[in-house]
Amino acid sequence: MKIGLIGFGKTGKAVATALLQNKELTLEWVIRRKKILDNRNVAEYLGVESDEPGLIYSSSSHTIDEILDKHPVEAIIDFSSDSGIYLYGNAAAKRKIKIISAISHYQKEQIDLLKTLSISTTVFWSPNITLGVNYLLFAAKFLKKIAPWADIVIVEEHFKDKAGVSGTAIKIAEALELEIESINTVRAGGIVGKHEIIFGFPFQTVRLIHESISREAFGSGVAFVAKNLKSKGSGFFQFEDLLLPYFKA
Amino acid sequence: MKIGLIGFGKTGKAVATALLQNKELTLEWVIRRKKILDNRNVAEYLGVESDEPGLIYSSSSHTIDEILDKHPVEAIIDFSSDSGIYLYGNAAAKRKIKIISAISHYQKEQIDLLKTLSISTTVFWSPNITLGVNYLLFAAKFLKKIAPWADIVIVEEHFKDKAGVSGTAIKIAEALELEIESINTVRAGGIVGKHEIIFGFPFQTVRLIHESISREAFGSGVAFVAKNLKSKGSGFFQFEDLLLPYFKA
Amino acid sequence: MKIGLIGFGKTGKAVATALLQNKELTLEWVIRRKKILDNRNVAEYLGVESDEPGLIYSSSSHTIDEILDKHPVEAIIDFSSDSGIYLYGNAAAKRKIKIISAISHYQKEQIDLLKTLSISTTVFWSPNITLGVNYLLFAAKFLKKIAPWADIVIVEEHFKDKAGVSGTAIKIAEALELEIESINTVRAGGIVGKHEIIFGFPFQTVRLIHESISREAFGSGVAFVAKNLKSKGSGFFQFEDLLLPYFKA
Amino acid sequence: MKIGLIGFGKTGKAVATALLQNKELTLEWVIRRKKILDNRNVAEYLGVESDEPGLIYSSSSHTIDEILDKHPVEAIIDFSSDSGIYLYGNAAAKRKIKIISAISHYQKEQIDLLKTLSISTTVFWSPNITLGVNYLLFAAKFLKKIAPWADIVIVEEHFKDKAGVSGTAIKIAEALELEIESINTVRAGGIVGKHEIIFGFPFQTVRLIHESISREAFGSGVAFVAKNLKSKGSGFFQFEDLLLPYFKA
Repeated sequence: MKIGLIGFGKTGKAVATALLQNKELTLEWVIRRKKILDNRNVAEYLGVESDEPGLIYSSSSHTIDEILDKHPVEAIIDFSSDSGIYLYGNAAAKRKIKIISAISHYQKEQIDLLKTLSISTTVFWSPNITLGVNYLLFAAKFLKKIAPWADIVIVEEHFKDKAGVSGTAIKIAEALELEIESINTVRAGGIVGKHEIIFGFPFQTVRLIHESISREAFGSGVAFVAKNLKSKGSGFFQFEDLLLPYFKA
Repeated sequence: MKIGLIGFGKTGKAVATALLQNKELTLEWVIRRKKILDNRNVAEYLGVESDEPGLIYSSSSHTIDEILDKHPVEAIIDFSSDSGIYLYGNAAAKRKIKIISAISHYQKEQIDLLKTLSISTTVFWSPNITLGVNYLLFAAKFLKKIAPWADIVIVEEHFKDKAGVSGTAIKIAEALELEIESINTVRAGGIVGKHEIIFGFPFQTVRLIHESISREAFGSGVAFVAKNLKSKGSGFFQFEDLLLPYFKA
Repeated sequence: MKIGLIGFGKTGKAVATALLQNKELTLEWVIRRKKILDNRNVAEYLGVESDEPGLIYSSSSHTIDEILDKHPVEAIIDFSSDSGIYLYGNAAAKRKIKIISAISHYQKEQIDLLKTLSISTTVFWSPNITLGVNYLLFAAKFLKKIAPWADIVIVEEHFKDKAGVSGTAIKIAEALELEIESINTVRAGGIVGKHEIIFGFPFQTVRLIHESISREAFGSGVAFVAKNLKSKGSGFFQFEDLLLPYFKA
Repeated sequence: MKIGLIGFGKTGKAVATALLQNKELTLEWVIRRKKILDNRNVAEYLGVESDEPGLIYSSSSHTIDEILDKHPVEAIIDFSSDSGIYLYGNAAAKRKIKIISAISHYQKEQIDLLKTLSISTTVFWSPNITLGVNYLLFAAKFLKKIAPWADIVIVEEHFKDKAGVSGTAIKIAEALELEIESINTVRAGGIVGKHEIIFGFPFQTVRLIHESISREAFGSGVAFVAKNLKSKGSGFFQFEDLLLPYFKA
């Protein structure tokens, strides 16, 4: 499957690294705002052993149509920013390219745009695109449904300088209808990221834990999503929609 | 719902305690082999504040029909031993009383008997009847289906003198198609019981953990099962069958 | 060693149970405020298999000197309340009976009284008298001294209805010179008690964890303290003083 | 403090990275066997922002005396292999350069050589030179001394392909006089490294946990050791010797 990536920050680079090493996906190009790496080969720049020819393009030097004409793709992965959708959205819808957005937060207008685009093509959006976190969300919602009387508490741990509450933890709290205040935030040392959802029962405790080892987990998540969207037509999809079909015993 | 309990060992007593305190269930009687507490009031013997009149009966002094005639029940909970089914099985099937068995291990003939009885009435069997452990099994099988490439390891911790590998851990290993040798067994101090299923991915780790606080968790599980079997007709049910319906988003 | 216990609430009962089962200590009596169990045999009341003859005495029916004359002890364990010291303090000092107080919190005047009594006899005070928690405090202070640059965070988990922040967690925060606000408080289900001290380094994390299984841990702590105070003369002692001697390699 | 590093494998590179970023230490050179990076600037090769001029030297192209004459150091850090000591040992002893060895395993003859060299200069050896792991060892031995009756179990987790039992876990087992069979080995996904020492008591559990985030932790450990050896004269030192002085309350 041919993929194009928008965004090349810390996470974008990790995702690109993971995609280059995935045999089922080909990274055709990366588009980013900065001009500095324009036309560099992605694999060579990242130091990944790969003969994939994909280049890095600056959005200020090339138009999306120009890039898509030269290097068509089946899906575009967005790790840039909430305004990134304006860059490629319409072009993708027109060419029926699947949109896979991993943007942490969108304004209302942008979500509306995604919904509009989903009439024409497959649109997927997950603020956290790792398989592990989305599995946790799904598993936690399920347990809450089975046992609505259980007490639920969230503990999230991150490195010292991470500002604010973890967006993932907020998403978990919302999914489980908990107050944001019920999130316990731990900031210490170099902890990459750990989320724990504690279900307290009178005589037993269930803990669902996700630990991040490295940002390349986002790349694994992208690969999972891309693979599971292959068979989907137009429409608006979220991670939960991709997990449900695995339930047919 | 009127309940009868077979078995009054350490777990049976904890279950009886939990059932007495559950307002939706009435513990009509307890049957056990020993004669020693025959005709004692259950609540009074256990020191539970409850005005439920249920008595303890010795199976060597009373027949099951005698007990059921005097104190009919809608379900019989079995925490005795694998041969317990011979005591009440046919009587239950004849009277269409639901059978809820929590026996750890059955011989083939006994499972065959359960299946036969299930033609006439509702028969439920779960070697570990706590909600938490069965949820863990369900959630783990689901994750394995989503991500069959993940490495799965089980760690089970129990008190110093617990002999052999945890039956629950073995059940988890079987459900996830793992070798029994992949179970790590920790025996230390007074740990009540902890099961951890570790899913190792290249860039993230997911841990599903269940911690027992006290045996009364089995009573909570019985209450959950009894409530969810109310609407079921005859047939053979396992815990997973009760969890699936909660999946309709 | 002959011991007397002041206080017979939930913790006092658990401690008495543990002491009755400890072969090196004899529980001579229990003094409590309520009259209800006056003159009952402790072991018989608690249902512990023991032939120790110790009785329960109500402080409103017997004076401390009366009890000490009839049943002299070498140490008095206090699990009652901060005013308990007024009941037995002077009598203990006069008779050179060691005082082991496990009272969670004292007013300034009471601490002053303890210090005064310590001129005449051995006085020990620890708000949490379990070996595990005090070891954790000691180990944590040591690590902070070795690596003062590490980020330290405390997470304490308890059952749903536990009011306020854990006193043990506050003690840990004070010992490590942390703000009380840095304590993360989790309240869920029936968690007996768990304290975790997280030391965050740039490239590694150290976690010191204490998990309570049951209140009888206080009894184990009392036994440890009593044994280690045997050789001590008059003076005021805290748990740390008993742990330091174990350091001679 | 001027430092020289022997060895430039995965761990050596991480240590070099950490040392380059430490302001109190200057990395004067790196010696390795391979010729491939001879004379490259360390910082430039590793992509670390640093103006330290240290070069990479191949041991097949330069003698140790040649390198030490041009770039004298106060300490040599060894992350190469057990035979590395033959390369620099005598030269270091003659010039009274401190030897800090982090070699996982030595033959008897090599340990004897280290002891001989320690007559002339400071010699330090720790198979695992991270502060966290050595703290854990120290803290665990201390707890075992306080409570020799506790049950102790070790659980070590590492990435899927790590062969054999963790050397650190074996060291912990030896220090605590446990059987190697008591080590529970977990291999799953990309877990960097986690060691847990569980102390099981009848009514409480203490867990001492160390989690590795990245190999740069070894560099932090080297910095700690180098700083604490400054004041030491000749002699043979191990990590425990450096931790003990922090105990003076």
